Amino acid sequence: MLKLYTYYRSSAAYRVRIVLNLKGLAWEPVFVHLRRGGGEQFKPDYVALNPQALVPILVDDGAVLTQSLAIINYLEETRPEPRLVPADAAARARVRALALMIACEIHPLNNLRVLKYLKDELGIEEDARNRWYRHWVELGLGTMERMVAGHPDTGAFCHGDSPGIADACLVPQIANARRFGGDLGVCPTLVAIEQRCLALEAFRAAAPEAQPDAED
Amino acid sequence: MLKLYTYYRSSAAYRVRIVLNLKGLAWEPVFVHLRRGGGEQFKPDYVALNPQALVPILVDDGAVLTQSLAIINYLEETRPEPRLVPADAAARARVRALALMIACEIHPLNNLRVLKYLKDELGIEEDARNRWYRHWVELGLGTMERMVAGHPDTGAFCHGDSPGIADACLVPQIANARRFGGDLGVCPTLVAIEQRCLALEAFRAAAPEAQPDAED
Repeated sequence: MLKLYTYYRSSAAYRVRIVLNLKGLAWEPVFVHLRRGGGEQFKPDYVALNPQALVPILVDDGAVLTQSLAIINYLEETRPEPRLVPADAAARARVRALALMIACEIHPLNNLRVLKYLKDELGIEEDARNRWYRHWVELGLGTMERMVAGHPDTGAFCHGDSPGIADACLVPQIANARRFGGDLGVCPTLVAIEQRCLALEAFRAAAPEAQPDAED
Repeated sequence: MLKLYTYYRSSAAYRVRIVLNLKGLAWEPVFVHLRRGGGEQFKPDYVALNPQALVPILVDDGAVLTQSLAIINYLEETRPEPRLVPADAAARARVRALALMIACEIHPLNNLRVLKYLKDELGIEEDARNRWYRHWVELGLGTMERMVAGHPDTGAFCHGDSPGIADACLVPQIANARRFGGDLGVCPTLVAIEQRCLALEAFRAAAPEAQPDAED
């Protein structure tokens, strides 16, 4: 069975949980607590598996895969149904660009290790760290809104009327934005898409609060 | 003809230039100066084309594509020869993960707008900004070294004995690291791969200093 190394609050792991669920795949979680004891992702056994010391890892029949978007691509290639990227090459590029906008332009600036560096190495206070967080989220989601709102390929979801990989990246990013008090007024179309996603069991079952390792 | 909106120093544009050259495709550059007049990427005409206000953009027969890795995937799908990702699904996932490590874990922390935010909004001095830069480059390249060195799929290049998408991401990142005085002692295998890449005309012709818009 597919094995996913996951942490309930990791939005990269959340993306993969959504895709696994959308494809109806059975998977077994291995919980990696990113905050306990200095971070279980830094333990030698984990780093031996993934030198990046990041979640998620997907293990499929001995193959150890890292980086959420590479894992999602792999699942799309090895378990093509239901299709989560469109068939047309230019449309595929659009959907991938939306996913990458989140994975490259928003999430990396706001993950745990970056916030920790701002605090520990640069002495940035909590208020300014929260402003940093909201700045990149609002800039990124506001930009994505302009890529999605009114685009002829946008439907009930980021591309057409069935959920796909861009939606699997969007929903975790909006969840993070909410947690940090980001202004979602910048992206009404994206929030409407998020709400349609959250009406689906595949998304709901992947949510942080639905994970067995969720806290409070 | 393919049209690439590019800036000589943009490492995301550099990745795409390498891939275009490796595939032997003719392309016409459109130069976007990221520093002149507050940044040409913020001009209305450019933002109308790409609301992200980032380079590169590839225009192919009317399709306007953004995000370097999405563009590279598109080129791989529409111009499959020579192949720049392996055929096997797990090997493809490994190569994509290496490309994403650079695109998601290193480059986003060190691009122009982030350094500008550190300076203008957080008042971080140049020395500390350079430490920030080197920290993420050395952490990222050091980690990538552990993913590549000694891996059975590593050859003369990141995967096997012909260059591919991971190499197209690696070479621009190492060029940036050199520019900012990063310690490349953390990644001898990657530097050896870089040197093999730079022996190839496709890489040399894509380099910042070989572009018509290069300065000094």
